[in-house]
Amino acid sequence: MRLVDSEAIRAFGVRFLQAYGASLENAQVITGHLVDNDLKGVESQGAMRLFEYARFMLEGKVNGKASPVVQVKGPGAFLVDGNQGFGIAAMEQAVEQLLNHLSEHPMAVAAITGVGHTGRVGAYAEALADRRCFGCVYGGGGHKEHPSVAPFGGTRGVMSTNPVAFAMPGMDGVPLSADFATSASAGGKLRLAQRKGTPLPPGQILDRDGNPSTNPADYFAGGVMLPSAGPKGSGMGMINELLCYGMLGDPVEFNWVITAFRLDLFCAVEDYQQRCEEFLGAVNRIPPAPGFQTVTYPGQYEAMCTRERRRTGIRVSDSIAAQLAEMARARGVELPSQLL
Amino acid sequence: MRLVDSEAIRAFGVRFLQAYGASLENAQVITGHLVDNDLKGVESQGAMRLFEYARFMLEGKVNGKASPVVQVKGPGAFLVDGNQGFGIAAMEQAVEQLLNHLSEHPMAVAAITGVGHTGRVGAYAEALADRRCFGCVYGGGGHKEHPSVAPFGGTRGVMSTNPVAFAMPGMDGVPLSADFATSASAGGKLRLAQRKGTPLPPGQILDRDGNPSTNPADYFAGGVMLPSAGPKGSGMGMINELLCYGMLGDPVEFNWVITAFRLDLFCAVEDYQQRCEEFLGAVNRIPPAPGFQTVTYPGQYEAMCTRERRRTGIRVSDSIAAQLAEMARARGVELPSQLL
Repeated sequence: MRLVDSEAIRAFGVRFLQAYGASLENAQVITGHLVDNDLKGVESQGAMRLFEYARFMLEGKVNGKASPVVQVKGPGAFLVDGNQGFGIAAMEQAVEQLLNHLSEHPMAVAAITGVGHTGRVGAYAEALADRRCFGCVYGGGGHKEHPSVAPFGGTRGVMSTNPVAFAMPGMDGVPLSADFATSASAGGKLRLAQRKGTPLPPGQILDRDGNPSTNPADYFAGGVMLPSAGPKGSGMGMINELLCYGMLGDPVEFNWVITAFRLDLFCAVEDYQQRCEEFLGAVNRIPPAPGFQTVTYPGQYEAMCTRERRRTGIRVSDSIAAQLAEMARARGVELPSQLL
Repeated sequence: MRLVDSEAIRAFGVRFLQAYGASLENAQVITGHLVDNDLKGVESQGAMRLFEYARFMLEGKVNGKASPVVQVKGPGAFLVDGNQGFGIAAMEQAVEQLLNHLSEHPMAVAAITGVGHTGRVGAYAEALADRRCFGCVYGGGGHKEHPSVAPFGGTRGVMSTNPVAFAMPGMDGVPLSADFATSASAGGKLRLAQRKGTPLPPGQILDRDGNPSTNPADYFAGGVMLPSAGPKGSGMGMINELLCYGMLGDPVEFNWVITAFRLDLFCAVEDYQQRCEEFLGAVNRIPPAPGFQTVTYPGQYEAMCTRERRRTGIRVSDSIAAQLAEMARARGVELPSQLL
């Protein structure tokens, strides 16, 4: 594990993705998103994805020079086609369209299709909250290719982890960002538990015969994930499937819907801010449970982490550093000293 | 327990509420909502509420003749003030405003304040889905008066059960309706468990000292409910609080936000219907887990129940029948024979 200066890896990431075929604009948007995730402590959606993205371009799975194509479907309604390019670029394009419209109108909606991996989806809801909107993101549509999650009361998969994200303006410029899978677990978490050999909490998976299991290996041997909180995650996951498959058709991986409306429709900015700080201040003053040092709102830890890591650098494991270095050298991309 | 013809109780409910001070229009809207809930099998939000509502009018808590007041806050943005009247009437008025706007525009949003009990909130999302929209309802704002739910990692309450509802068009005219509290349990469920003397599943409450408990009495002795699915329900509940208190200020009980957009912005109606039925058909074909006879989508059981109860009648317990009969006689309201 090493600490790498975030600005150094940002500059490196742009050169690296360009060397593997991305346009300058795409390389900047994607690297910006990934490094922000590393700063927030969400390393699974961070710079470790750079070499995966480079490989997607090498293998022809993604066209690094493609720009998303935007169709206006009505006043404030946008359909963004990722056009075989990077999902992060399409999502950022959708948010830009929404924010442009919202600067003069009360609400807007975007649908995003033709995209693969879209990074940390909370980021798109937060970008809307940063402009004093209520931002919502719904993902799904992969039930044919990835039926990994059972409906409530069922024993076989019928949908994917179908994530949602909701964000509102918070304190000190840090939005409250609720960003979660509608399934009880997720593939990455189950793989990690399997690698570590730790049992799962009950209620996360069924084995191939439909029996409850706490052994992560049972999921990979033909089992299925359960929905989060039973009927709640199951119903919400189905909503996402109807939005993202019912309305939008077959996805590459997931399709997406983003909605937003302006909070100043209903109140003065300063009134919102005062009440928001009163409530979130009360959250922070709640006595923590055993195992917790403080009670925070979602997004607050990530903001603290960002302040610290801007100073100390972001964490890159030795194996990821080695893989990035090898791929960088192969294309003559100069490495930051901390990655050497 | 007796079975009462739904049309007979609908006609009775209108006369009954009028006799206690409701306007004809309010009496019709409220009785319609309550009897629909009984037909769906949601008896806790059914005709048993009639005498509670009559008492609210007697005690001067609710003005049964008040009409909601609508302010247009922008194109497609409505602020509905319940005006000390019935919450159900204000919510129905908000949905009517939204649907009027949506008949010619892509999206709309309403905020509802100044209301008490609003019945089954899924009903309002479903009314939007019935008109081929994605309908969303968010409730909250009661953190000062009813801090019954702890944030994730906390040991004291900082918000209420802050419900959400999301609905999309489904099969055979039956919308998919995901309608749930963001808390792991709810006051009514805990009271029922206490009365029956049954222990709770783990993860629903903490006792007054912040320790996990499965004894429902511990909640009523100064304990607190936990959020649903830990950080997920906690984050979502806080989103609702920022919408319904941060944006809308102090509620009577809860404030509400309803949003909707038209699905035909992004696809032809027949394409949606075909893909929707394909997915929901797949849900229905999933092999059920032990204890389940079939796998359904949320709303499907309620539709089946409605078909049956239109024929057989709705269920009214003897004690509720007796209370209704007593209050009806006191004001000379004729009772349906099945309530005698």
